[in-house]
Amino acid sequence: MFSLSSHLQRRTLAWAPVFKVLAVLWLVLACFMLAPWLVLFIESDSDSRAFAMSIAVVLTAVALVWSMTWRIPIELKPRQMFVLTTASWVSISGFASLPLVLGAPQLSFTNAVFESVSAITTTGSTILVGIEDLSDGLKLWRGIMQWLGGIGIIVMAIAILPFLKVGGMRLFHTESSDWSDKVMPRTGGIAKATLSIYVAFTFAAALSYWLGGMSILDATVHAMTSMATGGFANSDASFSAYANQPHIFWIASFFMLCGALPFVLYIRTLRGSRSSLWRDQQVQGLLALLAIVILLLTLYRIIQGTPSFEALTHTTFNVISIVTTTGYASDDYSQWGALAVVAFFYLTFVGGCSGSTSGGMKIFRFQIAALMLWNQLRFLVHSNGVFSTNYNGVHLTDDISRGVVAFSFFFFLTIAGLALSLSALGLEFTTALTGAATAVANVGPGLGDTIGPSGNFEPLPATAKWLLCIGMLMGRLEILTVLVLLTPMFWRK
Amino acid sequence: MFSLSSHLQRRTLAWAPVFKVLAVLWLVLACFMLAPWLVLFIESDSDSRAFAMSIAVVLTAVALVWSMTWRIPIELKPRQMFVLTTASWVSISGFASLPLVLGAPQLSFTNAVFESVSAITTTGSTILVGIEDLSDGLKLWRGIMQWLGGIGIIVMAIAILPFLKVGGMRLFHTESSDWSDKVMPRTGGIAKATLSIYVAFTFAAALSYWLGGMSILDATVHAMTSMATGGFANSDASFSAYANQPHIFWIASFFMLCGALPFVLYIRTLRGSRSSLWRDQQVQGLLALLAIVILLLTLYRIIQGTPSFEALTHTTFNVISIVTTTGYASDDYSQWGALAVVAFFYLTFVGGCSGSTSGGMKIFRFQIAALMLWNQLRFLVHSNGVFSTNYNGVHLTDDISRGVVAFSFFFFLTIAGLALSLSALGLEFTTALTGAATAVANVGPGLGDTIGPSGNFEPLPATAKWLLCIGMLMGRLEILTVLVLLTPMFWRK
Repeated sequence: MFSLSSHLQRRTLAWAPVFKVLAVLWLVLACFMLAPWLVLFIESDSDSRAFAMSIAVVLTAVALVWSMTWRIPIELKPRQMFVLTTASWVSISGFASLPLVLGAPQLSFTNAVFESVSAITTTGSTILVGIEDLSDGLKLWRGIMQWLGGIGIIVMAIAILPFLKVGGMRLFHTESSDWSDKVMPRTGGIAKATLSIYVAFTFAAALSYWLGGMSILDATVHAMTSMATGGFANSDASFSAYANQPHIFWIASFFMLCGALPFVLYIRTLRGSRSSLWRDQQVQGLLALLAIVILLLTLYRIIQGTPSFEALTHTTFNVISIVTTTGYASDDYSQWGALAVVAFFYLTFVGGCSGSTSGGMKIFRFQIAALMLWNQLRFLVHSNGVFSTNYNGVHLTDDISRGVVAFSFFFFLTIAGLALSLSALGLEFTTALTGAATAVANVGPGLGDTIGPSGNFEPLPATAKWLLCIGMLMGRLEILTVLVLLTPMFWRK
Repeated sequence: MFSLSSHLQRRTLAWAPVFKVLAVLWLVLACFMLAPWLVLFIESDSDSRAFAMSIAVVLTAVALVWSMTWRIPIELKPRQMFVLTTASWVSISGFASLPLVLGAPQLSFTNAVFESVSAITTTGSTILVGIEDLSDGLKLWRGIMQWLGGIGIIVMAIAILPFLKVGGMRLFHTESSDWSDKVMPRTGGIAKATLSIYVAFTFAAALSYWLGGMSILDATVHAMTSMATGGFANSDASFSAYANQPHIFWIASFFMLCGALPFVLYIRTLRGSRSSLWRDQQVQGLLALLAIVILLLTLYRIIQGTPSFEALTHTTFNVISIVTTTGYASDDYSQWGALAVVAFFYLTFVGGCSGSTSGGMKIFRFQIAALMLWNQLRFLVHSNGVFSTNYNGVHLTDDISRGVVAFSFFFFLTIAGLALSLSALGLEFTTALTGAATAVANVGPGLGDTIGPSGNFEPLPATAKWLLCIGMLMGRLEILTVLVLLTPMFWRK
């Protein structure tokens, strides 16, 4: 008995540093809850009580953990980092859902968690109907949740994932550590610079939306959800509420795109390397893809009889929205014809650049896969050749290629497994398939009558919502980070 | 001028051996056209003229080529093998379509080519309506085309693809060449043994169907299309014409499965290595997959209220039909509920074993991918490990792994590209997606109202049929064999 309890104690001690870091993150969350609380308190809205209670709950949890772990030094090995990563996103989503349960909409536990997971993962699928009627505080909270999720994922992609070697992200390890040695002393420095730029972009977006005619609240929330490539809007109709103000679509398109580019490159640009953004292969790839797709789909719509400027505006907005994994909709593009439906389904998988707020498979993986496939064709023609390949000036090691391949396979397997599970709950073919894809890629809307761009996730069965939550979290954490926790060997001594 | 003509002459000479081999294959085709001609001649059916004319055309082509190439020795290098492979399937499909244009159904050129490509690639999608009313000769010809396509692909998988190192097929190079050194003197020996076994199985299948109550013609055609995992039936209703004879479904299930196992293992079993079939990892994988899927889907159907024996019979038959890429249907399984629809969509991609008549991605590629993914998870946990992996007792070299990965990516890319093209022609989401998948995987039926298990490909636009023909041929030839011909470097000196 004695040895068992000491064994347990040792095991608990090993995870104490993880809890200690989690508590810091929860504290940050509680601080951000103050903003909607303040707004609601000034407006004398009863939802302010919901936020006060939520803050109390989160602070209690923080105090509890700190009281038990304050003596323990923070030292994290890879195994603890894996656990910390998943645990932070799950626990923050949980705490963030509290105001939705306690506030005026009185969501069920399932619906509240779905909404907060969708927010924190910057997916943007919603179960809320009547968003216009929410209190200002809750509207603001939806924006803040996505905004926090956005900065969280950039920092994770820069500081944690390359270190854990997940999904070929080691490619960015070399680069960013190399770079930090020269230009800045610590990863902490990059994180701070990233945060400053993120804040500056958000201010610029809010100002642009406000000058474009939005109220301060709408401008703030949409600025946050644009930069986070999250996609929550302050209306059930998403951005089609602005159908008569085309300039709003162009402002949104610009800032969604800003959110989908690698933030490290902004820092480099500001530090004097003016052309580093345009010389980056990933940025070039994203811009080329967007240009081609937007051009072709615009032509397709013009041929079908849509006036040119309208076609260009809506195609640009919706294509950028889906590729950057934001998920705003200005129009029901599933009515644009068969080609558009299939094209938007494919675009769901793409995603923006690594080190941005966007989800999906990310451009660099497609580019590396294309290099590998080209090498394979060369191998078939010149059967004795060995081909060395560079990406963005970095030599593509087998290590990185294998990571990219494994990620791609697991990405599709996760979507396939999720879609099969959803179909077992009775969801029909298109809803199951596109629902799974949009969740894992953190995009937002699916296809079909229920969850399409003008639909809502509320009618889905509760189990389906929980499964989609798992899908959104797995997608956000690059799949393998979560999967590795499910293997017995991870937990073996 | 002189040097240009001598340059042209040299180029022509380089391809002369390819034409010479093609002519031999055309001659075989002409010989097989004699069978339906004879049947129709005895029955005094006017379709016999269509076959006589077709034979005349093919023999003229053979004579023309031989008159120009009879002096040239047959020596084939890899580049010529690549061209020969694609050219043989395309030209044979073309010649095989002649009786369909010239015979009673008087199909359009597009429809006839679609039908013959679908036959020769053992896909089994059909554009014919009123198959019951075809002449006996044409029914027989549809069976013979699939049967020839079936033996063609086995020989190609054993003798040609491993040599060309396409899609990880080198895995079977070591094995079969090693084996041929010990047991048989030449690849030609294996080809002959394979043919004997294929003929024997077909006789057994025909006898079983005949004893099961089919007419001699139906038994013969269905035996040929079962062993070829092709899927053409003698009725518009496919196998639902036998709804009241469950034993027919079990006979068909058995022979479809026989067609989907590696034929090299049959030879080994006959040569004394009794357990080689059951010790093969690919065979084990296929049987395990079938057992699990059939069990789960049968339970799903029983829960939905279908009587147990009926559920087991139809689930077994339809699952084996799709996984072996045969494509017979005994029922409209798209009415079995949401889970079944998604499950059958996934099963479309799987395919049987390599070295069999079936299409799809093939079991061994899934198994090798699974090994690679498992290694990647091990790599994340024990970051310094290097892991060596065996498959079927053979060491998995990077060469083979890369081939499998490239094949998988190209397979999905081909389907994605084809689906997008089909949607541009106006085909809706489900039809475009499942039509592309069923063509490239050489299965037969898709999903949706038009091309579903109880549908027909006739209503599709002509361009869509041609695109599907390209998809069927690319899928049958393992994609890369065709793709490599489209690269400029292949044609460079």
